[in-house]
Amino acid sequence: MNDQTPDSATDIPALMQAMGQRARAAAADLAFASPEAKRRALEAAADIVTARLPDILAANAQDMAFGRDKGLSPAMLDRLELTEDRIAAITAGLRAVAAQDDPVGAVIAEWDRPNGLHIQRVRTPLGVVGVIYESRPNVTADAGALCLKSGNAVILRGGSESFHSSGILVEALRAGLHAADLPEDAIQLVPTRDRAAVRELLTMTDYVDVIVPRGGKGLVGLVQAEARVPVFAHLEGICHVYIDRAADPETALKVTLNAKTRRTGICGAAECLLIHRDVVDSIGQGVIRALLDAGVEVRGDATLQSIPGVTPAQEDDWGREFLDMIIAARVVEDIDAAIAHIRRYGSSHTESILTEDDAAAHRFFQRLDSAILMRNASTQFADGGEFGMGAEIGIATGKMHARGPVGAEQLTSFKYLVTGQGTTRP
Amino acid sequence: MNDQTPDSATDIPALMQAMGQRARAAAADLAFASPEAKRRALEAAADIVTARLPDILAANAQDMAFGRDKGLSPAMLDRLELTEDRIAAITAGLRAVAAQDDPVGAVIAEWDRPNGLHIQRVRTPLGVVGVIYESRPNVTADAGALCLKSGNAVILRGGSESFHSSGILVEALRAGLHAADLPEDAIQLVPTRDRAAVRELLTMTDYVDVIVPRGGKGLVGLVQAEARVPVFAHLEGICHVYIDRAADPETALKVTLNAKTRRTGICGAAECLLIHRDVVDSIGQGVIRALLDAGVEVRGDATLQSIPGVTPAQEDDWGREFLDMIIAARVVEDIDAAIAHIRRYGSSHTESILTEDDAAAHRFFQRLDSAILMRNASTQFADGGEFGMGAEIGIATGKMHARGPVGAEQLTSFKYLVTGQGTTRP
Repeated sequence: MNDQTPDSATDIPALMQAMGQRARAAAADLAFASPEAKRRALEAAADIVTARLPDILAANAQDMAFGRDKGLSPAMLDRLELTEDRIAAITAGLRAVAAQDDPVGAVIAEWDRPNGLHIQRVRTPLGVVGVIYESRPNVTADAGALCLKSGNAVILRGGSESFHSSGILVEALRAGLHAADLPEDAIQLVPTRDRAAVRELLTMTDYVDVIVPRGGKGLVGLVQAEARVPVFAHLEGICHVYIDRAADPETALKVTLNAKTRRTGICGAAECLLIHRDVVDSIGQGVIRALLDAGVEVRGDATLQSIPGVTPAQEDDWGREFLDMIIAARVVEDIDAAIAHIRRYGSSHTESILTEDDAAAHRFFQRLDSAILMRNASTQFADGGEFGMGAEIGIATGKMHARGPVGAEQLTSFKYLVTGQGTTRP
Repeated sequence: MNDQTPDSATDIPALMQAMGQRARAAAADLAFASPEAKRRALEAAADIVTARLPDILAANAQDMAFGRDKGLSPAMLDRLELTEDRIAAITAGLRAVAAQDDPVGAVIAEWDRPNGLHIQRVRTPLGVVGVIYESRPNVTADAGALCLKSGNAVILRGGSESFHSSGILVEALRAGLHAADLPEDAIQLVPTRDRAAVRELLTMTDYVDVIVPRGGKGLVGLVQAEARVPVFAHLEGICHVYIDRAADPETALKVTLNAKTRRTGICGAAECLLIHRDVVDSIGQGVIRALLDAGVEVRGDATLQSIPGVTPAQEDDWGREFLDMIIAARVVEDIDAAIAHIRRYGSSHTESILTEDDAAAHRFFQRLDSAILMRNASTQFADGGEFGMGAEIGIATGKMHARGPVGAEQLTSFKYLVTGQGTTRP
């Protein structure tokens, strides 16, 4: 955490500009830090988190008390809470990112020209990343680690509920940087709960290269509307599962159940089920009943309402992110109708086709353009860790620069290195 | 060209929104067009341009007459003029892009997860590209061809001077699309000279995914300031040549001369020469004299002013884009001073180090972060064609998404395709 812990009388724009300047300076050095130094910093941070376990639990207890006073819901308090196990998961995440290949300097492509020029395209950090998030303190560690790995400075702005927990995690990350002789200002936490700091962060185009918001639709929508710098984000995860005519019944049953019910509050949870008309009475019936038996409220179209327990879907149930034990379900004429429905109502996050037909899967993969398209797999796999990225700073549904789960590699840009032998252009 | 040729009474926002809608619809189809169909469209367009040579020359003559009436400079008129040779170069460019590998659908990366999931990252078009340019009609063909190749629809807004020339080239491109059974609205030209159309294009976030401005600092600055969609661009090309202590004298001489004098009006022309103090009296003197002999005005620092013919540099000559037979020149203490100068005054476009010392070149490549860094090669190679991209839609100096010369590949995004075997997440 920074030296200043200003009260409400502080000049927030000046404070944020100063943080931005420090971040920019740190980024210039971090850009060419050795892979070994960055790895050492992350390992040291993990050691320090482990050593300071009692302090972290005490800081988190303060945050939990504040959260209870504030009347946070049990679900929010659960996200906020740190336990020994959760802190162990944080250190494991830091070590996993430390062990990854360093993306900076990696040669993405290289080729020779007839005139003898050798051209390389190599990865380079983006610069300064701003991360705005809500209650979960582990985002502090994940985002800090991924930005450090990718050579970017980061300005973290956690939710006011996690103020003390995030503060102590940032102290550990900065101590890790210090231990590896890297600039501590590469990781900074906004030292105020004042919301004006968020507005400033979103518009500091001189000092911030990209903003990553992590949280609910309210937070992400605000960031997308007000940011004057690029944003990597998804507003909603309206994920679809399509049971094709050629679906395997067993796969359809277990994947649909998993996609809806494993965890309902995450962005990769399925919100809408589309069923090919030819298999409604066979596979469809079984899947819908299994969902109902699992306690899911199924809001179906006219055809599906004939199944006992299915309630009528309203027009606004299509394209709706329930984040709960509710699913919208509809019968479609064919795969093209499924694709058309997803194009109309989807949020370009994750969709899965359940089919044994290669041609159908190919059509689904080719004609849809969500960040993640799946075949015979649960939408709940939409996650950087599950993709093998060690962690993720967020999931992006835009098409500029980063897309899908954003790990260290997607936090880089590139530059061209061109080598000649006194080569001149005719 | 489109059916409408509205006069000033037209509702420009409505016109542009309608073009945007048509572009969006065309892009949805073009996204999964076969590589073969896109190649056929480009080849057909090249055939039609060749067949309509007399029409194109006649249309260009109209534009030239308009330009002369308007009092365009000889340099501007030269850029506007089409000759048989230049039209042959346009068709050669169309065929070169046709012959390239299709970027869409290319697998950028793929891997397997321990749970059996197979993950592919594949290229997908961006959507709709807006191109805003000045007098050169060949931009019409280059931009149209690269967008088509990359599966993007494009809305072209050429300078009013090239109105007829660009119009007939767009007719040829659209006829090529038609011949290949692809949506003609994938390539549209704004059918009005009204400047309100530019403002509308820059803010149509629902219909335009990225804007590429091609032209002078005035145009690019306006686009960067007013665009509400991402922009691929460079504002200026303030390119540096640094003659290191370990430079080869012959290389220093010929590369510096070429970098400055081959063509002075392009963004890759050198604007500033930095010379290591240890070689000022040996290599430096010779290079400066050769520049003076070639007719270049050399604006030097105090040390270099001792060379007869060198005029004194003013503070605002550093970081200045002359685009003329003028170069700023300065002696630096060492390579780090050269790097510091470039960081302070450069525009992140292209810089070249002339050295036989691998460690110096490595330091220059690592510690600078321009879009293009060169060693022992002329900055005039900063060009998509010279990089082997067939053509370029522009050169970008930002770090988001595209950087350096922007060819078909950089006009794509990606999506993840994930294949399981009924895989569920524990």
